[in-house]
Amino acid sequence: MSLTRIHNLSISLDGFATGEPQSKEAPFGHAGERLHEWMFATRFWKKTGGTVGADHAFAERHEPGIGAEIMGANKFGPPGWQDDPDWKGWWGPNPPFHTPTFVLTHRPRPPIEMAGGTTFHFLDASPAEALQAAREAAGGQDVRIGGGATVVRDFVAAGLVDNMHLVQVPIVLGRGVRVWDGLEALEQGYDIEVVSTPSGVTHLTFMRKRG
Amino acid sequence: MSLTRIHNLSISLDGFATGEPQSKEAPFGHAGERLHEWMFATRFWKKTGGTVGADHAFAERHEPGIGAEIMGANKFGPPGWQDDPDWKGWWGPNPPFHTPTFVLTHRPRPPIEMAGGTTFHFLDASPAEALQAAREAAGGQDVRIGGGATVVRDFVAAGLVDNMHLVQVPIVLGRGVRVWDGLEALEQGYDIEVVSTPSGVTHLTFMRKRG
Repeated sequence: MSLTRIHNLSISLDGFATGEPQSKEAPFGHAGERLHEWMFATRFWKKTGGTVGADHAFAERHEPGIGAEIMGANKFGPPGWQDDPDWKGWWGPNPPFHTPTFVLTHRPRPPIEMAGGTTFHFLDASPAEALQAAREAAGGQDVRIGGGATVVRDFVAAGLVDNMHLVQVPIVLGRGVRVWDGLEALEQGYDIEVVSTPSGVTHLTFMRKRG
Repeated sequence: MSLTRIHNLSISLDGFATGEPQSKEAPFGHAGERLHEWMFATRFWKKTGGTVGADHAFAERHEPGIGAEIMGANKFGPPGWQDDPDWKGWWGPNPPFHTPTFVLTHRPRPPIEMAGGTTFHFLDASPAEALQAAREAAGGQDVRIGGGATVVRDFVAAGLVDNMHLVQVPIVLGRGVRVWDGLEALEQGYDIEVVSTPSGVTHLTFMRKRG
């Protein structure tokens, strides 16, 4: 069975997954990379060296079993990337997705085939429609909702997400895009496991209840 | 040295310390008592029986060394209690404070002496002024900021709080009074320790950095 999964979405204590304003120079706005330092310390990120404890164990779940990713326009590029016909994402010629990757945008363009197995497809579609397209492309594997926060919110609110892993970092951002908005009573649909780790972050795992 | 402390302030994943609307029948609005169930299970609350693990250990820190409490008008009574000359708080003739207790309100009234050592004083004052009054009444002991969330925010934002203990409960309330608003970059002033416990809650301890 193909699941829909979210991994490693880092949020502040006040629930922001990014700061503001977002730009090419500051993709996460005033948050900088403070939401992601916990991951930079892991072997998952460093490839050699790094910690191999709980933070690493959670982080590396990002990869296995994923056959396609869906991301929002704000993850693919800075504001206005739709006006740049040469923009191919932040990640260089070999993006770290290695699967069909669906970018939600109101201004779709033809697919872009990158090295390493990543092909960017551009869709102007509802969450359910996008998920159907990604599911067909995933070859029976799972689909990852790659973010940002607004896309995560939309897919969770639409009841499309099976597993969600959030990482709460002990900073208060005060402003940005809040992952919780519109998700009142989320606990009714999910079993929730919470574990804090020695690095100071807290991993929240949401597992959809089966009826 | 007399410290200013906050204990057992329970919040939802999205940071709300109470739901809405607040009323005499529903002091925490649509949150009901869901934010406090973790505490009801402890010996601190039950007096006999109950758990004596991490949740209890945190909960019972509420009491020792406290010489006075400051609370907001919304903790003392439901909306409009100022119009009821007989209102003496939610807690019956012997309130659980057992110290001078300062209620912040724009409509102060004469002090009310209760059984068990609690005397309610009513102040229309800034956080700093209220803290000075409570400090003088505390007899060298610590002052507890008893909540609700707006009072906690005001005292933290004014730089008056030494220790703050929050308890994050895995529910998403969606609306209410959010404890984080106005506290951007709080981590710059505090060392923060985070621990999740088997009951599913996460204890956040903020300890003011000394310059």
